[in-house]
Amino acid sequence: MTNPTAAMLVIGDEILSGRTRDSNTHYLAGELTQRGIRLMEARVVADDHAAIVEAVNALRGRWDHLFTSGGIGPTHDDITADAVAAAFGLGISHRADAMALLQAHYDRAGLEFNTARQRMARIPDTATLIDNPVSTAPGFTLGNVHVMAGVPNIFQAMVASVLPTLTGGEPLLSQSLRVNRGEGEIAGPFAALAADFPDLSMGSYPFIQNGAHGTNLVIRGTDPAQLDAAMTRLCALFS
Amino acid sequence: MTNPTAAMLVIGDEILSGRTRDSNTHYLAGELTQRGIRLMEARVVADDHAAIVEAVNALRGRWDHLFTSGGIGPTHDDITADAVAAAFGLGISHRADAMALLQAHYDRAGLEFNTARQRMARIPDTATLIDNPVSTAPGFTLGNVHVMAGVPNIFQAMVASVLPTLTGGEPLLSQSLRVNRGEGEIAGPFAALAADFPDLSMGSYPFIQNGAHGTNLVIRGTDPAQLDAAMTRLCALFS
Repeated sequence: MTNPTAAMLVIGDEILSGRTRDSNTHYLAGELTQRGIRLMEARVVADDHAAIVEAVNALRGRWDHLFTSGGIGPTHDDITADAVAAAFGLGISHRADAMALLQAHYDRAGLEFNTARQRMARIPDTATLIDNPVSTAPGFTLGNVHVMAGVPNIFQAMVASVLPTLTGGEPLLSQSLRVNRGEGEIAGPFAALAADFPDLSMGSYPFIQNGAHGTNLVIRGTDPAQLDAAMTRLCALFS
Repeated sequence: MTNPTAAMLVIGDEILSGRTRDSNTHYLAGELTQRGIRLMEARVVADDHAAIVEAVNALRGRWDHLFTSGGIGPTHDDITADAVAAAFGLGISHRADAMALLQAHYDRAGLEFNTARQRMARIPDTATLIDNPVSTAPGFTLGNVHVMAGVPNIFQAMVASVLPTLTGGEPLLSQSLRVNRGEGEIAGPFAALAADFPDLSMGSYPFIQNGAHGTNLVIRGTDPAQLDAAMTRLCALFS
């Protein structure tokens, strides 16, 4: 059985300028792994129409799912919804369902539902809304593309809305062993072990602690029995 | 005058599985911005030969510089050097200059310079070495591609070696104003201001603090006089 695949597209000048450090990719990676969906690729592009359109089309054509974060707020630099509509060749308008949600939200808050805020109701034709329990302004799913907010707590809430609707795969399991030896010392036998288990992925991550070299060895796969067998041999090699 | 452009390519299964959160992109973004080099795009791909080759060729063809992190260690999953050589259609071998550096390093440490460690001397033909003051194993520059380690302190040391060799641009300046109003309230006048300064980039980044909405407004550009003029008008609008 193969696992579904996914990509992440982070949209925002503030990530590329170094002002903000993206945290959404790391969060999504962990959530997808738990559900057996493989994150295959991630990209960051600027708030630039052509760059967003190109990345959306490249990634949605290649992987089962594409998740985006950023660019769906009320200001002039929030151009993601229009770019995603253009990527699909679809129209976009102030959709009645999104307008109603936002009108009710601002009525409750006693705030004017002005032109800028109405921008957040621009949703491509045929898209379905993604619930935003934090601040109401919805994301949307169009085909296999899930368009979500960049603010981390809203992004996370939207991921929680979307993931249960997707078909997962066998959970991607991992086991790791911490070894107090440098990578160069264990690389030979570790490679031989990896060659014996072609269905598993084995990675090694070096660290230095108190001036001494160490390595975290990680084995990933979907078959628990294979994982256990590999781990037993790994421990026999290096423990 | 236009600023040089750059892209970042992060290579590693551990980022896509959610095991490790990438910090190198954020570090590089800040360093490039200070030197007037615009980071235009970033990608993360797995430890997969074809994926690395494709991303290297896409990004080195499009931007002035490409920086990579990850996959240059001694273990079987370290395949970046071979993939970059393949992307350029060049050969790769245990280069004498890198072999000498590493041999001296392991001699000093009293450790065997074994086959695995010799893997770190595999350098594409015609590449120049990037100094690694932390752990000796070098990165390399091939054409406009700078191949560096994934371990953050080594990546940072290599960036410090490479950046002084590159032609920078006018510094990318930014000024910001923190406003205790939500984005939806300031979006209209902020967009009008942005339209008056087409050479500047203006972004708005919402936050919630103690339950109240606020927004950081950021203006970026290379012309200090324009930046000051825009900032004066911004403060008049919202302070």
